[in-house]
Amino acid sequence: MAVGVLGARGKVGSEVCRAVAAAPDLRLVAEVDQGDDPRVLVESGAQVVVHFTHPDVVMDHLALCVEHGIHAVVGTTGFDDSRLETLRDQLGDAPRSGILIAPNFSIGAVLMMRFAALAAPHFESVEVIELHHPDKADAPSGTARRTAELVAAARRTAGVAAAPDATSTVLDGARGADVDGVPVHSVRVRGLVAHQEVVLGGPGETLTIRHDSLDRSSFSPGVLAAVRAIGDHPGLTVGLEHLIDLG
Amino acid sequence: MAVGVLGARGKVGSEVCRAVAAAPDLRLVAEVDQGDDPRVLVESGAQVVVHFTHPDVVMDHLALCVEHGIHAVVGTTGFDDSRLETLRDQLGDAPRSGILIAPNFSIGAVLMMRFAALAAPHFESVEVIELHHPDKADAPSGTARRTAELVAAARRTAGVAAAPDATSTVLDGARGADVDGVPVHSVRVRGLVAHQEVVLGGPGETLTIRHDSLDRSSFSPGVLAAVRAIGDHPGLTVGLEHLIDLG
Amino acid sequence: MAVGVLGARGKVGSEVCRAVAAAPDLRLVAEVDQGDDPRVLVESGAQVVVHFTHPDVVMDHLALCVEHGIHAVVGTTGFDDSRLETLRDQLGDAPRSGILIAPNFSIGAVLMMRFAALAAPHFESVEVIELHHPDKADAPSGTARRTAELVAAARRTAGVAAAPDATSTVLDGARGADVDGVPVHSVRVRGLVAHQEVVLGGPGETLTIRHDSLDRSSFSPGVLAAVRAIGDHPGLTVGLEHLIDLG
Amino acid sequence: MAVGVLGARGKVGSEVCRAVAAAPDLRLVAEVDQGDDPRVLVESGAQVVVHFTHPDVVMDHLALCVEHGIHAVVGTTGFDDSRLETLRDQLGDAPRSGILIAPNFSIGAVLMMRFAALAAPHFESVEVIELHHPDKADAPSGTARRTAELVAAARRTAGVAAAPDATSTVLDGARGADVDGVPVHSVRVRGLVAHQEVVLGGPGETLTIRHDSLDRSSFSPGVLAAVRAIGDHPGLTVGLEHLIDLG
Repeated sequence: MAVGVLGARGKVGSEVCRAVAAAPDLRLVAEVDQGDDPRVLVESGAQVVVHFTHPDVVMDHLALCVEHGIHAVVGTTGFDDSRLETLRDQLGDAPRSGILIAPNFSIGAVLMMRFAALAAPHFESVEVIELHHPDKADAPSGTARRTAELVAAARRTAGVAAAPDATSTVLDGARGADVDGVPVHSVRVRGLVAHQEVVLGGPGETLTIRHDSLDRSSFSPGVLAAVRAIGDHPGLTVGLEHLIDLG
Repeated sequence: MAVGVLGARGKVGSEVCRAVAAAPDLRLVAEVDQGDDPRVLVESGAQVVVHFTHPDVVMDHLALCVEHGIHAVVGTTGFDDSRLETLRDQLGDAPRSGILIAPNFSIGAVLMMRFAALAAPHFESVEVIELHHPDKADAPSGTARRTAELVAAARRTAGVAAAPDATSTVLDGARGADVDGVPVHSVRVRGLVAHQEVVLGGPGETLTIRHDSLDRSSFSPGVLAAVRAIGDHPGLTVGLEHLIDLG
Repeated sequence: MAVGVLGARGKVGSEVCRAVAAAPDLRLVAEVDQGDDPRVLVESGAQVVVHFTHPDVVMDHLALCVEHGIHAVVGTTGFDDSRLETLRDQLGDAPRSGILIAPNFSIGAVLMMRFAALAAPHFESVEVIELHHPDKADAPSGTARRTAELVAAARRTAGVAAAPDATSTVLDGARGADVDGVPVHSVRVRGLVAHQEVVLGGPGETLTIRHDSLDRSSFSPGVLAAVRAIGDHPGLTVGLEHLIDLG
Repeated sequence: MAVGVLGARGKVGSEVCRAVAAAPDLRLVAEVDQGDDPRVLVESGAQVVVHFTHPDVVMDHLALCVEHGIHAVVGTTGFDDSRLETLRDQLGDAPRSGILIAPNFSIGAVLMMRFAALAAPHFESVEVIELHHPDKADAPSGTARRTAELVAAARRTAGVAAAPDATSTVLDGARGADVDGVPVHSVRVRGLVAHQEVVLGGPGETLTIRHDSLDRSSFSPGVLAAVRAIGDHPGLTVGLEHLIDLG
């Protein structure tokens, strides 16, 4: 399979180039970045293009891909409802093309969220602890918020009661942030990278799902899995979990 | 729903009685143990009977249940292929009756095994660490062996390569026991009860699924879930995971 | 060594009786509780008496012990400065008698706090996560507060700068409670008992000290260690850590 | 304080240069590597020299340092008893000079080993789990072996009985490697870097000391602490733990 990379000289993009080049079933046919002519992608014969670029340019690049029947795997951010609608319109005229928009290509993070949502209705209690380096600006992390929202939705659908909590004497902040009724705790310690634990519990037992992300290379296997699968998923897909086989 | 318990004065059975009595949607109508007449179950109007009894008596009790159209949820051990075949025969004449045979009623343990098998094909490496009190006779635990077998089967089906391991200088035993190609490590420390971690990893990230079982009451929610579900699962079911909704 | 137990029929006291009776180097010579005459302790020849009693009676019992040259190991709560002063006065007239007042007899908890304080000046960051069952009334736990105070004091003494934290967008409560500048996070999940983690970190590494307390028997080894050591520690001692050899 | 670095262009050495340059109380006065004249160190006025060099050259460099009254902090490997004896002889003629030879400059690793040894006599059981990337050649790791040896020695000195273990049915390797009677388990999973847990337990409780080392920069704080302390420790010191204040 012939693969092109857009944003090929960026931090993530260059890692993706390395991973594509190393995969025996993939061929890296184009590395394009700012200043290069994106039509190189078409001429190179790329069947799938990976986008790790800027929100300002990604829509033009995607239009070019759809026009030439090239599938797209997109890690660029900034897709709001209006942009997604535009893409759906374009794909309406190209029913065999596939576009994946994914906020997170870490397979571990995707599985953590999926398993947390599957398990959540089966336990009385669930809380999220996320642990990051102290240079991070937001608390909780986006992944922790998303996890808590998925967990809360799964429990709502299943009609599970609120988690028990007899706390009556509390020091402000001790019980964490409330995200849709799920407590989320944000730890910031030098030496950490990006980690998250979902702790679920019922009478006499707990189940803990933990994800540790130690470096940027963790995105590569998810990108490669998406590259391999996108041809079988025409239309617009949002979220890597829809392309990975979760049984 | 009317529920009877066989083995009602045993350690697990008495815990089950307590849980059934406390559940607003269940009615505990019969508590039967050694020395009692099991036909009390029939007279009590039980719709489901929970069996935590001895292998010597369980087949007679199950025949009685099937004969009277009572569903059965069974934690008694000792079911080999021949016994399962006998049960299937009996159920052939009672197509609306359900029997669940489950080696483990902990929902946490069931989910841990299920998630480990789902995740296993997506990572390069996977190992199992189980940690128990030092009075345990077998190493690895039955749950750890079963987990490793499920993980190995999932990877075989998906065509995943063996996990990398460059170990060339090794002290005997350091790399654990080999269960179908999956390393399993058994820790025995006073103060522990029953714990297991499945560690999966790929480039730059790891996913860890941990189950901690702290006391016997952890079996109750699984038994109750099975009691509620068995009526919708006629025939013979082996393993609680087939009655729990895992998405 | 001859040992008596006061509060012998209480939850903790009866556990202590069992542990003393099982120790080859100790003899359980008196088990006293409400309604019994405490002078039995003197007549029994007890050299050390363990007190797990009520604050209303403990001062009278201690006066009796000091008067008869019996050492005391005390888990009863409610000792304020005025009570401690009274004990010091009494012991002034009995220079060979020892009294230990300890809020916590878990050796694991004592070591966790000690190690956290020793390590704290060597790392940029330190946070405390405590995890308990959801029936607990206070958050953070007393042990977590005490740990944070010890950690903060050790860092102050060593002149360590405040831990870095670039958080600028925060959901209320996400960063935990502030105890003397140390963030403390309280997790409440069914199935947990009493657990605490102290996470310390510097460039490229973290050190985590975790204590899991699963049942009441965790107090026994600390009580026995105190019984054996108190004879060599005349006067008033507050805190088990002063009787345990920490190198 | 004026500091020189030998091996300044190596992986670790260049990291040390960066850290020294960034420390407000230290001045980086010389960066020396292969091909440079080491006498630059003397001319630069360095009071302390950090050595991350090759075993073939380190003895000459140390002789030069001692001769000119420069203290040395040494991460170079390959010091056997005969080399240490030579250094002691040289230092005999320079009673105010200090040399530190340290196999590990990670403060977290040093504290983990120290705390494990301090805690070991207070618990019935202790085991070591080390987890590394799968490209590692030896199992167990050197740090895990050293930890187990220190733990075993501390228990021997205190007269602690062997840890209980009722295992009677065992799959080969499940209980780990035996290092001086301490079970050591080696996990090898892609995505891990270098991690170790020491699990200690007694009735009803466990204490876990975990060290996670995520990148090479973890060595810098230990090197800087040694640079600051070596002037107050004349003579030969082996092991960073002797220069760090552990209370």
